[in-house]
Amino acid sequence: MIKELHFALGEFQTRLAAVKKEMAKREIDILLLSEPPNQNYLTGYNAYSFYTPQMVIVAQDHAEPIWIGRFMDRVSASMTTYLAEDNIRAYPDTYVQSATLSAYTFMADIVKELGGEKARIGVEMGGYYYPARGHADLTRALPNAEFVDADLLVGWIRLVKSPAEVAIMHQAGQLADAAMTRVIDMVQAGVRECDIAAAIYHQQISGTPEFGGDYPCCPPDLCIGERSIAPHAAWTDDPLPESTVVNLELNGCRHRYQVNLARTIVVGQPSSAFLNLSEIAVEALNAGLEAVRPGRTCSQVDADFRKALARHGIEKESRIGYPTGIGFPPASGERTASIRKGDETVLKPGMVFHMMPGLWLDNVGITITQSFAVSETGYEPLTKTPRKLFVK
Amino acid sequence: MIKELHFALGEFQTRLAAVKKEMAKREIDILLLSEPPNQNYLTGYNAYSFYTPQMVIVAQDHAEPIWIGRFMDRVSASMTTYLAEDNIRAYPDTYVQSATLSAYTFMADIVKELGGEKARIGVEMGGYYYPARGHADLTRALPNAEFVDADLLVGWIRLVKSPAEVAIMHQAGQLADAAMTRVIDMVQAGVRECDIAAAIYHQQISGTPEFGGDYPCCPPDLCIGERSIAPHAAWTDDPLPESTVVNLELNGCRHRYQVNLARTIVVGQPSSAFLNLSEIAVEALNAGLEAVRPGRTCSQVDADFRKALARHGIEKESRIGYPTGIGFPPASGERTASIRKGDETVLKPGMVFHMMPGLWLDNVGITITQSFAVSETGYEPLTKTPRKLFVK
Repeated sequence: MIKELHFALGEFQTRLAAVKKEMAKREIDILLLSEPPNQNYLTGYNAYSFYTPQMVIVAQDHAEPIWIGRFMDRVSASMTTYLAEDNIRAYPDTYVQSATLSAYTFMADIVKELGGEKARIGVEMGGYYYPARGHADLTRALPNAEFVDADLLVGWIRLVKSPAEVAIMHQAGQLADAAMTRVIDMVQAGVRECDIAAAIYHQQISGTPEFGGDYPCCPPDLCIGERSIAPHAAWTDDPLPESTVVNLELNGCRHRYQVNLARTIVVGQPSSAFLNLSEIAVEALNAGLEAVRPGRTCSQVDADFRKALARHGIEKESRIGYPTGIGFPPASGERTASIRKGDETVLKPGMVFHMMPGLWLDNVGITITQSFAVSETGYEPLTKTPRKLFVK
Repeated sequence: MIKELHFALGEFQTRLAAVKKEMAKREIDILLLSEPPNQNYLTGYNAYSFYTPQMVIVAQDHAEPIWIGRFMDRVSASMTTYLAEDNIRAYPDTYVQSATLSAYTFMADIVKELGGEKARIGVEMGGYYYPARGHADLTRALPNAEFVDADLLVGWIRLVKSPAEVAIMHQAGQLADAAMTRVIDMVQAGVRECDIAAAIYHQQISGTPEFGGDYPCCPPDLCIGERSIAPHAAWTDDPLPESTVVNLELNGCRHRYQVNLARTIVVGQPSSAFLNLSEIAVEALNAGLEAVRPGRTCSQVDADFRKALARHGIEKESRIGYPTGIGFPPASGERTASIRKGDETVLKPGMVFHMMPGLWLDNVGITITQSFAVSETGYEPLTKTPRKLFVK
């Protein structure tokens, strides 16, 4: 059978050891991971199957993780994970959309098999793929176990990427650059919004002659003209007018690692106030990036960014950066550190962030952003699109 | 401000009346809808914002639904819904990824404002966007309310589409046809899998000269060669070999309505056994389609399909169809009726299904499918790609 592992076995073992160590610290015997990025991180598992109940179990007393999913997806588990066949467990299709059978009861039986009837069990209460009913079914099936919220336990470990992960994220960055370049080339009056979106997807996935991309975690944000104040609006079939502002956030995704990139593209002649604001945006972004170095905190980086803005009399409230890494729909951002006031997370080499300050002038915004990895001495950009306003 | 409503106000009112009637039947005072398709159905809301907590409340004593979401998305609520500004409520960004503030407590306050402190409250326990922690926060904030599972309450109403909805799904079908035609044209030895996936996305979204498409609910399933036994596997950068089988399921998505379509494309010369199997697949599919008419049940349609297969000595276990309609990631299928043995759902005009039987020969499968709307007298195909095996 085909095997598709994108990391050495030793890397998976290091990740697992880190998770077990944190479990021990929190006195968690068994960890039930419902979030697809965490399942991918610990086993390599990658298939679009997480819309049915799926779990990876890490038990202190069991060497390997155990994957549990739908019958037809066990082939993907064999192909994309390093797990022994014994540790790949699947429920039959009778459990799918059944009014009487719950896949979570099936999972509870495996917890019992592992001796977990009275265990302290960690679950991801805030995750996208741990529905209220799943939790109810699990706790009912394991009445003597103690359930604790272990949301983000793996997330905080994932925050620091290995050199092999950063290398893949450089490829994801190349995909993002290629997509942005294509858009900058094609944007002009008369081009339909849907054709811009279509070109982005095409370039993200066809990628480069050397490698292609995966499906992204989320659609591009294509904020055009009047709709630019609606940051997550759907695109339309409308052609671009003679003069407009396009704020575009897109990404590249390689082996599920996602790197984000946003730029503002002006069709027609921007006002001098808008040009001026774009220069301030770049200056502040650069100040933020220059503030990045191991040992400093997210809050300190944020302060340097804000200081640069303040020199021009501008204040900004919201956070200016979030980490990315392994992503599955619906969202690409990791939910751990934020580059914002009060976040005392200490930067370490291998952390990856998307620094994405947005500045607003009346109803028109400017977004010029930079994804980067924290290096030994500062930051390492993951995309190469120039940090500037593009005028077409 | 731009208004983007794809249905007449009367249609939204009819939908709401049907939901309130069903609530009354179940003695539900207040319904909390966390599923994006249900939010879209009842209000028109459409933005890629559902990865943060978002809710639509339907209260028996309140005329309009109430949308609750993140501050920056309230503009999308104004643009894409018919709701009065009073019924658009947003929590500040301090609630996003906060360790202390919960958006679900904010929602509970609005329930209280509606007099719902002791109400019987319906929630969607099995949905994708109702996390275990959200339910815990809500029930803690409303200790005197009674919570009941109202999962699929709206789903069963959505199952029957209006003529206006079917018209949009015909457009979605055109998008699916266009994407399938493009793939059939391009498939040949040497073409990379990722370039096929890229072309699918491009065509789904750029669509036709008259209209484009939305982002799909899920990536295409591109099952090629050895990987065809892994139905939800990610595509690779590998070029197609000289001789292989491509099983492709893709879709078209228009104003969030999705229509699915699958075909098998053979590169090289198929074996006579495989050709023979493809003819049986089409014969059984046609038998299933001919069995569709108002008044018959899903189970009866399934039986006719199975009878056609049995004439060739073939048995098949799994379900052969599911409904589609409004879709958001991660899944396009509605979770209500299934065309399978024992499903006694009675067909009505306006129901839309994807009939998708797959047949297998050793390790190679054939999928030739048809999306259709139940008409007054039978079925109305939503895609026009011929029902046959394509050989390149």
